[in-house]
Amino acid sequence: MTKFLKIGAVGASALLAASPVLAQDASADPSPYIFTTLLFLMGGFLVFWMAAGFAMLEAGLVRSKNVTTQLTKNIALFGIASIMYWLVGFNLMYPGDWWISGWLGPFFSITSLEPVGLAAADASLDYASAGSDFFFQLMFCATTASIVSGTLAERIKLWPFLIFVIVLTGFIYPIEASWQWGGGWLSEFGFSDFAGSTLVHAAGGFAALAGAIILGPRIGKYSADGRVNPIMGSNLPLATLGTFILWLGWFGFNGGSQLAMGTVGDVTDVSRIFANTNMAAAAGAVAALILTQVSYGKVDLTMVLNGALAGLVSITAEPLAPSLFGALITGAIGGAIVVYTVPLLDKLKIDDVVGAIPVHLIAGIWGTLAVAFYTGGWVAQIVGIVSIGAFVFITSFIVWMILKVTMGIRVGEEEEIMGLDASELGMEAYPEFTKG
Amino acid sequence: MTKFLKIGAVGASALLAASPVLAQDASADPSPYIFTTLLFLMGGFLVFWMAAGFAMLEAGLVRSKNVTTQLTKNIALFGIASIMYWLVGFNLMYPGDWWISGWLGPFFSITSLEPVGLAAADASLDYASAGSDFFFQLMFCATTASIVSGTLAERIKLWPFLIFVIVLTGFIYPIEASWQWGGGWLSEFGFSDFAGSTLVHAAGGFAALAGAIILGPRIGKYSADGRVNPIMGSNLPLATLGTFILWLGWFGFNGGSQLAMGTVGDVTDVSRIFANTNMAAAAGAVAALILTQVSYGKVDLTMVLNGALAGLVSITAEPLAPSLFGALITGAIGGAIVVYTVPLLDKLKIDDVVGAIPVHLIAGIWGTLAVAFYTGGWVAQIVGIVSIGAFVFITSFIVWMILKVTMGIRVGEEEEIMGLDASELGMEAYPEFTKG
Amino acid sequence: MTKFLKIGAVGASALLAASPVLAQDASADPSPYIFTTLLFLMGGFLVFWMAAGFAMLEAGLVRSKNVTTQLTKNIALFGIASIMYWLVGFNLMYPGDWWISGWLGPFFSITSLEPVGLAAADASLDYASAGSDFFFQLMFCATTASIVSGTLAERIKLWPFLIFVIVLTGFIYPIEASWQWGGGWLSEFGFSDFAGSTLVHAAGGFAALAGAIILGPRIGKYSADGRVNPIMGSNLPLATLGTFILWLGWFGFNGGSQLAMGTVGDVTDVSRIFANTNMAAAAGAVAALILTQVSYGKVDLTMVLNGALAGLVSITAEPLAPSLFGALITGAIGGAIVVYTVPLLDKLKIDDVVGAIPVHLIAGIWGTLAVAFYTGGWVAQIVGIVSIGAFVFITSFIVWMILKVTMGIRVGEEEEIMGLDASELGMEAYPEFTKG
Repeated sequence: MTKFLKIGAVGASALLAASPVLAQDASADPSPYIFTTLLFLMGGFLVFWMAAGFAMLEAGLVRSKNVTTQLTKNIALFGIASIMYWLVGFNLMYPGDWWISGWLGPFFSITSLEPVGLAAADASLDYASAGSDFFFQLMFCATTASIVSGTLAERIKLWPFLIFVIVLTGFIYPIEASWQWGGGWLSEFGFSDFAGSTLVHAAGGFAALAGAIILGPRIGKYSADGRVNPIMGSNLPLATLGTFILWLGWFGFNGGSQLAMGTVGDVTDVSRIFANTNMAAAAGAVAALILTQVSYGKVDLTMVLNGALAGLVSITAEPLAPSLFGALITGAIGGAIVVYTVPLLDKLKIDDVVGAIPVHLIAGIWGTLAVAFYTGGWVAQIVGIVSIGAFVFITSFIVWMILKVTMGIRVGEEEEIMGLDASELGMEAYPEFTKG
Repeated sequence: MTKFLKIGAVGASALLAASPVLAQDASADPSPYIFTTLLFLMGGFLVFWMAAGFAMLEAGLVRSKNVTTQLTKNIALFGIASIMYWLVGFNLMYPGDWWISGWLGPFFSITSLEPVGLAAADASLDYASAGSDFFFQLMFCATTASIVSGTLAERIKLWPFLIFVIVLTGFIYPIEASWQWGGGWLSEFGFSDFAGSTLVHAAGGFAALAGAIILGPRIGKYSADGRVNPIMGSNLPLATLGTFILWLGWFGFNGGSQLAMGTVGDVTDVSRIFANTNMAAAAGAVAALILTQVSYGKVDLTMVLNGALAGLVSITAEPLAPSLFGALITGAIGGAIVVYTVPLLDKLKIDDVVGAIPVHLIAGIWGTLAVAFYTGGWVAQIVGIVSIGAFVFITSFIVWMILKVTMGIRVGEEEEIMGLDASELGMEAYPEFTKG
Repeated sequence: MTKFLKIGAVGASALLAASPVLAQDASADPSPYIFTTLLFLMGGFLVFWMAAGFAMLEAGLVRSKNVTTQLTKNIALFGIASIMYWLVGFNLMYPGDWWISGWLGPFFSITSLEPVGLAAADASLDYASAGSDFFFQLMFCATTASIVSGTLAERIKLWPFLIFVIVLTGFIYPIEASWQWGGGWLSEFGFSDFAGSTLVHAAGGFAALAGAIILGPRIGKYSADGRVNPIMGSNLPLATLGTFILWLGWFGFNGGSQLAMGTVGDVTDVSRIFANTNMAAAAGAVAALILTQVSYGKVDLTMVLNGALAGLVSITAEPLAPSLFGALITGAIGGAIVVYTVPLLDKLKIDDVVGAIPVHLIAGIWGTLAVAFYTGGWVAQIVGIVSIGAFVFITSFIVWMILKVTMGIRVGEEEEIMGLDASELGMEAYPEFTKG
């Protein structure tokens, strides 16, 4: 599983390779550099597209009175993540990296890119451009924030949520991700998480879980007598579109995490990853299809959608090593997890509006553990999950608590019933359609 | 038109090239292999995206009471196709291919991919990775199934439909496709179908036609006095989005079918294909725009959308040879076909909910015949269409009949009127919007 | 800023490079040619996708009674642009280009592509295939037309609009674009517009402005007493989806305009462009987020969406030279422009339904001026904006006036109140949802 180490070593290798002393011979073939850079650009725009997928999925699964707010949160969090990851996150995550400009002196540095028209002699020809690397890594940071917004929908205030996003994308995510992908202690410990089942998905899920506990469930979700009242999404085609978008974007998420495309071995590995990623999503969807029919007597579309996503999350920790059959099993278990843990959360009265905790947190843990079937490193996997989980959950919990105490994080009861679109933004998503 | 033969020869050439004896010199330039593999990965994710396009198109063209069911069918069929094509289809279609693991011995083999970190010396450097090839080919198989779901909407039961998909994607499609793309008798006979006007689109259309005949029209579509009652789609922005998605995905569908991108000639051909594919779609849309205005006095958006799609289907059999002007003519005739055959189907009381038979079957035949303007091989084209059409129609008819007799394929009258979402799934697509 | 000149020199360089005398040595490495061709194909399909983005954005921002018409205009204009740019535009824009077939003799030539299976010896190995170049350039022409359709929504007749599109995409855009990108007088004058803040976006905005002035505002938009009555969009998830689509497509729009990807320097520059483009969009969105909160007390989602788009338009004139911090500033100013010029237009009683004039025209001018911070060429930038603005505005004004006088461009009062979908097309977009 040297691939994981490769990720972990990015910071260091880029530093070495780009240093003038070690610069490549200018006559070397630039094709591998171009191919890998292209992989990051393609992977990056595919993962960017996942931001739209989360927006559509969540807008489809909330009630129409909260749709405008949900859309606003999703586009705003992506904008904030883009700025924070540049301002703080990237350098925090890859502290040794080369292209850093001292903006305010050594105490505060922000990410900079290569100069225009970089000469081949100045490039680290065994990797890729810093610009493409930054672009690609940024999208993972934004994805982590996207995961949070769904769980907390329909009752959280806009601005406290966005302030949390600032902390999450500028600090919490970059710090825990640096432990592994920045060449930190977890990567040295032998933890494996190819494209981020834990570093991105479970992390987002833990941040969401902390928020959901502090925020409490929506009014009417749980009756006093213990009954769970399902609250239906307002637009299932949107939710389905969002799922397809995420599925598409995941080819970039996992495929791009190969971090190289310039050799026969690397591009063939990227191909394996694409095929395995698709198989896991398919298996997750089919598992949820069959299991909802068997367990509840009716197929449940939202479970099928979340089953596909859980399959994707499950394979993300190791999309390369499994055979197609292994990917099928991994993804199918992810789909089953969703079907049986969504009711579990309700028993705990944790109100997760879109099912992000089962999909990203629980299936993310499953996928990360499953890596040990290939590496044998059960301890390292468990240590990784626990340490990242504890760090993200605790820091998130503290931030949510501070926000709750200082400015409040939940809208008033009347506002919640009226809907956040009317009460917070004064703009309906479908002014001509809804009954109310 | 050696390009067609190139497709036909994939199975054989991959077999030869990958055999150890013929393995390439490890010092050979890997760039063509990487470029072609990349073409398959990009083509594959673009064709994957077409699954979302079909889902949106069909969800937009059915009534809101059947939208959840239509979405469920579309995501489920893609999952099933992914599994069946791996389990049976790919090996059935390319029987001589290299990367096969004997899972249950020689009687039952499933598709396997290259080992992780393939050495250049073990690769068939004149082609691409098996993983990317499988990923790309899989998407064509799934597309065939997507075509069927639209025609049969609003009255077919979920599970019989999905069982049909199992047979179609595991057996019917791979068998007929192997006749041409697996190096079978049709390719030896001189039949030409570059990216599948007949192998994919007309085949899907024939399977849909067989189902539509057995299933019968929706209640209320045809009055006893012979009147045709138009049933309007519930969400035209979704249908338009679906069309744009399909148009985008088609660049991968046709462009990727060049099967090579590692030489100046091949990438220039891929460019021709992109430009021609776009032109045919544009011409199909504009033809339908003008013809609906002229023939009916009003432009019909759904006809314009289907006109664009028919243009795309028409050019699919030969997107390389025509000039841009030739692509325009081919696509415009496709658009005209839609405008004038949709009413024809209604005269035959064949109820095709989304117009998939005119778009995929009839325009597919037109496109396949039009190849003979370039090759001169009229007989081969006709033999190909008739043999594939007969095989797919008859086998599909038999499967639909077996399903009808054993488990029934049509929901009850009351369920149909109530809508499949309430009766079959118990979940509305737009619980807050609809009148009922 | 030689990059701009590179664009300007395309016509000439392609001519020279492709001439037999100067043809490359067949033994030269084809990889740069393949990489750049691939850049155009990827850039092209991403910019194609922007057509879907405009369609969704505009369909979401009009009232439901005009949605079918808006969708029809968007798909029809793309079809028409594809045909007109082939028939007239490309040759008008790049008059010296190589692959031209005399269709009706020397007086009327249309664009042709390379022959099938082009030999490396016949290719201009320092550029890319004509097919990919045409495909890419075509998308920019279509984008210009997409910009116009939003401003004039909800009151313009379908066919006069489409006739305007014929003139715009066949003549107006290609002529003004040839001044710069065809190697014309503006490029010689030192004007800089990397990917078309002025050539595409402001040009589309000027054409829209001329139309909006002649067409007049929608009934009910401005009260006799001077009050402005906001008219809400009918489907904000669609508008948000459209914005995300445009954001994604813009990576191709700006990145592809590097026009080269075959060297370390070029692909690294493409990476810079991707990162800067994303940053400008993010900054535009966040600026609008903050400024609407500060200025109006409430966040306004449609402003945030248009803020992101204005950020994208602003960076389009120079996405390469700025640092990430420069891109942030450029984009944030674009976002601020939207927040404060939308009300300004209303004061002038110019009714721009989707805000295309602030986003594309005003932010386009800002972005084009901002180039001078890098080049110092203030005069050239101003001359470019004024000359293109004057040309597009005046020619558009004349065409709109001719259309008004000859066939009328505005629907009747009754039709406008009833909605264009019922009056012009007889087809509702959401027949089951709306109240009316």
